[in-house]
Amino acid sequence: MARIEYPQAVVALVNELKQLPGVGPRSAERIAIWLVQHPRAHPVAFSEALLGAHEKVVPCPRCGFFSTPEGCAVCQHPRREPVLCVVEQATDVISMERSGAFRGRYHCLGGRLSPLDNVTPEDLRIGPLLERIGSEGTEEVILALGSDVEGEATANYLADLLRTKCRVTRLAQGLPAGGGLEHADALTLARALEGRRGL
Amino acid sequence: MARIEYPQAVVALVNELKQLPGVGPRSAERIAIWLVQHPRAHPVAFSEALLGAHEKVVPCPRCGFFSTPEGCAVCQHPRREPVLCVVEQATDVISMERSGAFRGRYHCLGGRLSPLDNVTPEDLRIGPLLERIGSEGTEEVILALGSDVEGEATANYLADLLRTKCRVTRLAQGLPAGGGLEHADALTLARALEGRRGL
Repeated sequence: MARIEYPQAVVALVNELKQLPGVGPRSAERIAIWLVQHPRAHPVAFSEALLGAHEKVVPCPRCGFFSTPEGCAVCQHPRREPVLCVVEQATDVISMERSGAFRGRYHCLGGRLSPLDNVTPEDLRIGPLLERIGSEGTEEVILALGSDVEGEATANYLADLLRTKCRVTRLAQGLPAGGGLEHADALTLARALEGRRGL
Repeated sequence: MARIEYPQAVVALVNELKQLPGVGPRSAERIAIWLVQHPRAHPVAFSEALLGAHEKVVPCPRCGFFSTPEGCAVCQHPRREPVLCVVEQATDVISMERSGAFRGRYHCLGGRLSPLDNVTPEDLRIGPLLERIGSEGTEEVILALGSDVEGEATANYLADLLRTKCRVTRLAQGLPAGGGLEHADALTLARALEGRRGL
């Protein structure tokens, strides 16, 4: 005897939800039922937001951040210092901005060098970076890349490339804010010691 | 200086995603960026699935399961036994069906009695249940309700109401399949002992 299943429309929605990062089959089912059933769900507004973001948001050809037909918030930002912060992903711009500690411009590479994943310098937005440094009077490039192997490799590659053109710096490595010594691994501690500063 | 934020279209999508059950602000951001950026994301198909489910799926006026313009899978199911399984939620039908152990029909109450949440018998689909028992020649009603306080109260209320009309049973309580004694709480053990069966 055929088992009763959800209507096809619900199954289709579950299948779409299952693809989202961090959403497993059970959460997908729960969310789909909620969307169909819950009085506070507004699937029409959700659908509009989804299509709106899909249609409007494209990578900025200059800096790589999320851009819209109204322009790119990074490139249009008024009065930024002539310092260029190079990050891996567009989302890293938001992290940097939330820190409130940077007042320059950004450049998103769109990834990092990773021979194992076949990511070579040609796959990153390095050409546009060189053009910008030439045309924007950049005084300093801050490499704000991850401190893992690929991030380090990318930083070293870029430093070699840019050193003759402007000042090149990178983010400090050390203890995370609020973290005690007992939570820091040996490598972090070694780097924190290496980068110690006078008081 | 104004901080750079995501474009409004992304913020709107994040706000919609944040409402979903089990999706916090950080997951919402992650999912939104994935939907906007990832080559494997298909926001148009997602939006269509969402609107499709929203437009097509309504509660069946008879049994309360998810119904579509094509009809209700529960009510249209051919050759079901004249046994009515009463569940709290439409989703419980799927759980029962996946167990593969039931071949009758279903009736979804749409909730359970809960004086604390102001859920009274009038809020549940009890009227349609009584009608169905009268008109469908139901031989037995199985109360497949939760084994918590509200589920028990609802089961007792319905049993009093239905006892004169047909046979009324409820699901057994006892050890969950695969669970050892050491994981069962005292109440579960007491009920498993009470409901012990001859071998």
